[in-house]
Amino acid sequence: MKNAYEICVVHGDGIGPEVCQATLRVLEAAFGEALPLRFSEYPAGAQHFLKTGDSFPRETFEACHSADAILHGAAGIPGINHPDGTEAGLDFTLTLRSKLDLYANVRPIKLHPGVRSPLRDAAPGAIDYVIVRENSEGLYAARGAGSLLRDEVAIDPLVQSRKGIERIVHFAFELARSRDGAPQGRRRRVTCCDKANVLRSYAFFRSVFDEVAAQYPDIEAEHVLIDAMTVHLINRPSHYDVIVTENMFGDIISDLGAATIGGMGMSPSAELGDGNGFFQASHGSAPDIAGKGIANPYGTILAAAMMLNWLGLRHADPRLIDAGKRIETSVTYALADKSVLSRDIGGTAGSLEITEVICAGLRERV
Amino acid sequence: MKNAYEICVVHGDGIGPEVCQATLRVLEAAFGEALPLRFSEYPAGAQHFLKTGDSFPRETFEACHSADAILHGAAGIPGINHPDGTEAGLDFTLTLRSKLDLYANVRPIKLHPGVRSPLRDAAPGAIDYVIVRENSEGLYAARGAGSLLRDEVAIDPLVQSRKGIERIVHFAFELARSRDGAPQGRRRRVTCCDKANVLRSYAFFRSVFDEVAAQYPDIEAEHVLIDAMTVHLINRPSHYDVIVTENMFGDIISDLGAATIGGMGMSPSAELGDGNGFFQASHGSAPDIAGKGIANPYGTILAAAMMLNWLGLRHADPRLIDAGKRIETSVTYALADKSVLSRDIGGTAGSLEITEVICAGLRERV
Ligand SMILES: CC(C)[C@H](C(=O)O)[C@@H](O)C(=O)O
Ligand SMILES: CC(C)[C@H](C(=O)O)[C@@H](O)C(=O)O
Repeated sequence: MKNAYEICVVHGDGIGPEVCQATLRVLEAAFGEALPLRFSEYPAGAQHFLKTGDSFPRETFEACHSADAILHGAAGIPGINHPDGTEAGLDFTLTLRSKLDLYANVRPIKLHPGVRSPLRDAAPGAIDYVIVRENSEGLYAARGAGSLLRDEVAIDPLVQSRKGIERIVHFAFELARSRDGAPQGRRRRVTCCDKANVLRSYAFFRSVFDEVAAQYPDIEAEHVLIDAMTVHLINRPSHYDVIVTENMFGDIISDLGAATIGGMGMSPSAELGDGNGFFQASHGSAPDIAGKGIANPYGTILAAAMMLNWLGLRHADPRLIDAGKRIETSVTYALADKSVLSRDIGGTAGSLEITEVICAGLRERV
Repeated sequence: MKNAYEICVVHGDGIGPEVCQATLRVLEAAFGEALPLRFSEYPAGAQHFLKTGDSFPRETFEACHSADAILHGAAGIPGINHPDGTEAGLDFTLTLRSKLDLYANVRPIKLHPGVRSPLRDAAPGAIDYVIVRENSEGLYAARGAGSLLRDEVAIDPLVQSRKGIERIVHFAFELARSRDGAPQGRRRRVTCCDKANVLRSYAFFRSVFDEVAAQYPDIEAEHVLIDAMTVHLINRPSHYDVIVTENMFGDIISDLGAATIGGMGMSPSAELGDGNGFFQASHGSAPDIAGKGIANPYGTILAAAMMLNWLGLRHADPRLIDAGKRIETSVTYALADKSVLSRDIGGTAGSLEITEVICAGLRERV
């Protein structure tokens, strides 16, 4: 437990600054007078790259590295690319993942009461699982390392290591154990999502998964192929509790999952290493709506709640755990009781209105 | 135009034989007395592997190679694996793809009237696009070629070549042109689905796509990242006409697309090379329901209609094109007018009943 935790805030591009501002206000409201967080702001992203030629300044990295947690808005401007065609604005997120070894990307997929799912049969509460995306290797290991031969053949190696798989699978099983109190009731189930039928590296992922699973006899373990997974996440999302998968597959199914609960704007993301935690919404920078006051801040606010929970557990600080819970409750209050919905989820509320209702909920301790 | 076309029929595993039998009956009904097809049956798959140690006999390959078209039921028994952990039953499909260079995997995603989509807002006709999956390289190029180092690191190379990308992208644009008569009206749009923002090989795919697109100024070209694609296929499927993508991504989004139109049982698949055509439903062998008479034959029957259309165009044979159309019409008749639905799409009809209704439709020329 500390007096105050250092939060490194990086606004980034597009709607990043708006959703960050909203979230900082919510964090302040959650604690009232006694804010145990110290925010410091640093630049990174495509806009900064355009201005300075550097998408991720050294000082920003140092600040992230030494902070207790990192809060990010969003990054990227389409078309601002590196010579190999990949996007410059994404350096912040991608470099942070690898330099800080943030190996566990945790993406809760939860249908909040008050939000309409595009799935016909989804009742509120019926979708509540967590995708644990391996965040340090897999196909993403190829980033910057792939090769292009005479403009004729491009190769990106998909790399999966025993160490990398073991730690992410352990993470998933520990999470499944800790989810005993989840609203849906205990499912205590971990699903390994792979393509073991065709590719050796995924067969390896599965075999290491099985070894680790044997150490958790109290938790059910099962396998699903990535292609079938997309069908199941549409037809029986309520079956799932914790899903663990390789980096690229995790990228794909976490967006799919988000689509079923109202879209990327409702989906928070935590990227955790043994030493650091990095929190943001799963959505991109949406430059087309930036500055209009209509961005959906729920994802970033929910990410901040995850941040408080993670910091609280890590530092045995009940103040933070409690505040995280209250933010979630106030989000439910805003969505379900007050129906304050942004455009992407079928409403008309702007970022400011949403923020105010959540802050009011926090002050009134709904 | 030939007097008769040789169709090599491989029943395969699980429900394969049932859906194949159903489809052969429908093909016979479509032509009445004057059947211009000659069927010959050959073995392959996991069951055959168990019996003989060979999942794909040489004679079966020769027969496939020399046939005018190949019709397949389904393959695979989970747990019957090669030493590297991948599935033996899949050799038939995967080897055929590579040995016959079936580079274009065409998967129409169409919501048939009478079938309920799990998507709340999907009206019949609102989902009608085609996924063109690159079928000869990408991540699947690694099959059998990946390496495992000391049980510590597994590597599968994702390989994308200029030649491979050019031909599949041309295929997609030609298809978009030919789809002028699609029920939904012309959309004349090709969407490139990739992960160009992070990986070099996908950036390469995109840049070759752009080069080819420039040769089709009458067709709209656009890019979508794979993760965003999953969201769009749920939220605005009617936007899409032809989607072209790398092998692994195509595997994933074609199942996702199938889920939105009633599931794998409703989804046909054509794998085309310059010389051969291979037709099957997209679903697996579903060993749990095999032999019970409840398998959904619609996917295989629709694949047979694609086969007739492909053969008809190739050999300038209007008999086949016409029969393909009549099969599709009779499928619509069975689904929409007669509501003959199998269990996977919410009904109670068995394979036999479905087959009979479609055959009756064909005889009565509905
Ligand atoms: C922005 C991009 C680099 C990132 C990814 O591909 O991982 C995003 O899609 C995500 O899911 O966090
Ligand atoms: C059965 C399997 C090898 C195959 C694939 O992965 O391509 C299947 O999922 C498909 O989509 O055709």
